[in-house]
Amino acid sequence: MSDGYNVAVVGATGAVGTKLIEMLEQTNLPLKNVKLLASQRSAGRKLLFKGAGIFVEELTADSFDDVDIAFFSAGGSTSQKFASEAVNRGVVVIDNTSKFRMDKDTPLVVPEVNKEALKQHQGIIANPNCSTIQMMVALKPIKELAGIDRIIASTYQAVSGAGARAVEEVKQQSREILDGELTENLTTEILPVASDKKHYPLAFNALAQIDEFAEEDYTKEEWKMVNETKKIMEDSQIKVSATCVRVPVITSHSESIYIETIEQTSVDQIRDSLEKAPGIVVEDDPSQQVYPQALNSVGKKETFVGRIRQDLDIEDGYHLWVVSDNLLKGAAWNSVQIAETLHEMDLVRV
Amino acid sequence: MSDGYNVAVVGATGAVGTKLIEMLEQTNLPLKNVKLLASQRSAGRKLLFKGAGIFVEELTADSFDDVDIAFFSAGGSTSQKFASEAVNRGVVVIDNTSKFRMDKDTPLVVPEVNKEALKQHQGIIANPNCSTIQMMVALKPIKELAGIDRIIASTYQAVSGAGARAVEEVKQQSREILDGELTENLTTEILPVASDKKHYPLAFNALAQIDEFAEEDYTKEEWKMVNETKKIMEDSQIKVSATCVRVPVITSHSESIYIETIEQTSVDQIRDSLEKAPGIVVEDDPSQQVYPQALNSVGKKETFVGRIRQDLDIEDGYHLWVVSDNLLKGAAWNSVQIAETLHEMDLVRV
Repeated sequence: MSDGYNVAVVGATGAVGTKLIEMLEQTNLPLKNVKLLASQRSAGRKLLFKGAGIFVEELTADSFDDVDIAFFSAGGSTSQKFASEAVNRGVVVIDNTSKFRMDKDTPLVVPEVNKEALKQHQGIIANPNCSTIQMMVALKPIKELAGIDRIIASTYQAVSGAGARAVEEVKQQSREILDGELTENLTTEILPVASDKKHYPLAFNALAQIDEFAEEDYTKEEWKMVNETKKIMEDSQIKVSATCVRVPVITSHSESIYIETIEQTSVDQIRDSLEKAPGIVVEDDPSQQVYPQALNSVGKKETFVGRIRQDLDIEDGYHLWVVSDNLLKGAAWNSVQIAETLHEMDLVRV
Repeated sequence: MSDGYNVAVVGATGAVGTKLIEMLEQTNLPLKNVKLLASQRSAGRKLLFKGAGIFVEELTADSFDDVDIAFFSAGGSTSQKFASEAVNRGVVVIDNTSKFRMDKDTPLVVPEVNKEALKQHQGIIANPNCSTIQMMVALKPIKELAGIDRIIASTYQAVSGAGARAVEEVKQQSREILDGELTENLTTEILPVASDKKHYPLAFNALAQIDEFAEEDYTKEEWKMVNETKKIMEDSQIKVSATCVRVPVITSHSESIYIETIEQTSVDQIRDSLEKAPGIVVEDDPSQQVYPQALNSVGKKETFVGRIRQDLDIEDGYHLWVVSDNLLKGAAWNSVQIAETLHEMDLVRV
C-alpha cells in the first residue's frame, strides 16, 4: 500500500456496521477508499463518512476486487459465503461473527492481549465475542501479574448486542409497560434470540439466555466466553465458567467477574497492574461512589474496571466489575484496532 | 388467643407495607383485628383490607397496647425507637429492617430453612434481607443433600427494594431516555442509595452499589448476604461472597449463584432435591427455553430456580439462577409466614 488502504464494511447499515464507519472516521489507519456493502435490501442508501455521502452497494463476490481490508459484520452466513471469496481476491478479512473464531488457522485477537497471533493469519482474523473481549482486556494484566487459575463470570449484557431491531423492541416494550400494559400483551418477536422458538419481554426483566442453548445446558454465548478465553489466552488449562444474562440496558455490557490467581498477589498490585495496562480505565473509589457504569461508558473505547475486592474467604480470590461499550471495544473498535495493528506489524497481506 | 390475633402493620403505606396487607388478606393465621400504623404524614389515609376501609393511625408507643403481633417495615430508626416499646407491651415483633438481624438474641428466620430458631425468640424476630432469603430457600435443600462449602452470588436486584419513590424515579428516568433526554439531564435524586452522597440514573443502566459501602470495599448489602447466610444456616464456616447489583427491573430479584458442595452430588440429584423442597418451583428446561424470569415471578410467593448446571471444571461446582418477588418472599410474605409459623409452633408470646 502506498497512499492508503481500500477498506470495505460488510453489513454497513447494521448496529455494528454503523459503529465501524464511526471508528474508521477516527482511525489513524491510512485510508484511500471506504466501500459500504450490504444486502440488496439496503443497497442504494447513502451513509455519511467524514461528512461525505457514500452509497451502500449490494454485496457480491466482485465487491472485493479492489479491496485491501474488509470488515465483516453481517451475520455468520454472509461471512461463510463471502469471506473466502474476499480472501481469494487478496483481501484481509476481519470478521465480527462467530463463524471462524474457533478455527485452528484463524487468529482470534484482542490487540491489547494477543496481537502476536496476527502473524499466523491466512487472510481471516476473527474478532472475539463482545462479552469475551472486555473480560480479556481486564484479565490480561492480572494474568501477567500473578497467573489466573479460574474465572467465574456473570454478565449483565446490553440489548444492542442483539441488533438494532432488538433495541427497538425493548424500547417499545418499555413504553408499553410504562403505559400500564400487562406482561402477557407486550410485543415479543425478537428477544432473547431471534432464531429461537420462544420470545420473551426484556423490558424491566432479566433473561438468563443469550444465544441458543447448547452442550451441558450452557448457552452458546456462555460457551463463547469459555472457549474464546482459552484460545485468546493460549491457555487450555484455565478454568472458565459463565452465566450470560441479558438486561434492559441499551448499550455497554457489565460483568461480575471472580478470579483465582495462581500466585499470591493483592488488591493494590492488581489495581496497579490495571492502571498501567493499555485500554483500561480503573474507576474504583468506594468512598466517592466511583465504579464503572454502563451508561457512562457508552461511546468510549476503553474497558472500565472497578469494585476490585479480595474474596472474603479465598486468599487468591478476587472480584471485579468490568464494563465496556459492546458495540465499540466489543465489536467495531476492536475490529478497527486489529486493522491498525496489522498495519503496524506490516501484516496487511494474505 | 382464642378468637384470633390483633395484628399491626407499621409502615402500612410503604412498598412492603402495602404487600404486608395483601399477604394478611391471604393468610391462614386467625385474625381478629388489623391495625395500620404509619408516620403522622400518612395518618388518616384509608386503606382497604378484604374490601373494608381501615384508617391509617399515627404510630405511637401506645398503638401497641392491644396488639399481639406487629410487622415492622418503616425503616431501621422506627424499629429502633418502637420495637422494644411493643415488646414491653407483650407484642411479638416481626421486623423487616436490618436493625436487629445480627443481634445474638434475635432469631433471623426463613421458615423453610430454620424455623426452629423461632423457639429462642425474646419478642423480636428479624426478617432477613430480600436477596438473602431467596438464596437461602434455594440452597437449603442442596445443603441437606451434599453440604455447601462455598457460595459466590452476583445479583440482579429490582428497584422496588429501594422503595416506592425509587420505583417512580426509574420510571421517570425511563420515560426521559425514551424521549431522547441526555444522560446528564436525567432526574437522579434517590438511586442508588437515598442516604448516600451521589445519585445516578438506573434506567437502562446497572449499578454495582446497593446500600452504602462498608468494610473491605463490600457494600452493606453484600455484607448482609454474607453474614445473614452464616447466621440462618447456622454455619460460621460456610464461605460466602457477593456482588450486589441494581438493575432496571421493577420487582423480583434474580441471582446468579455458584456453589461448591462438600460431598459429591449431581445436577439430577440437586434438581430432585429442589423439586421436593417447600417454597420452590423448578423452572429448568433449556430445550423449551424454560428458566426463571423476574417478570414472571411478580406476585408469586415461591422462589424459582433454573439454569442448574455443573461447573465446567470443578466437579463439585454448580451454577443456579434464582428468582423471587423481592416484596413477597423477600419481605412481606416471609414476614407473614413467620407469623403463621409462630402460631403453628405456639410461640406467639413474649
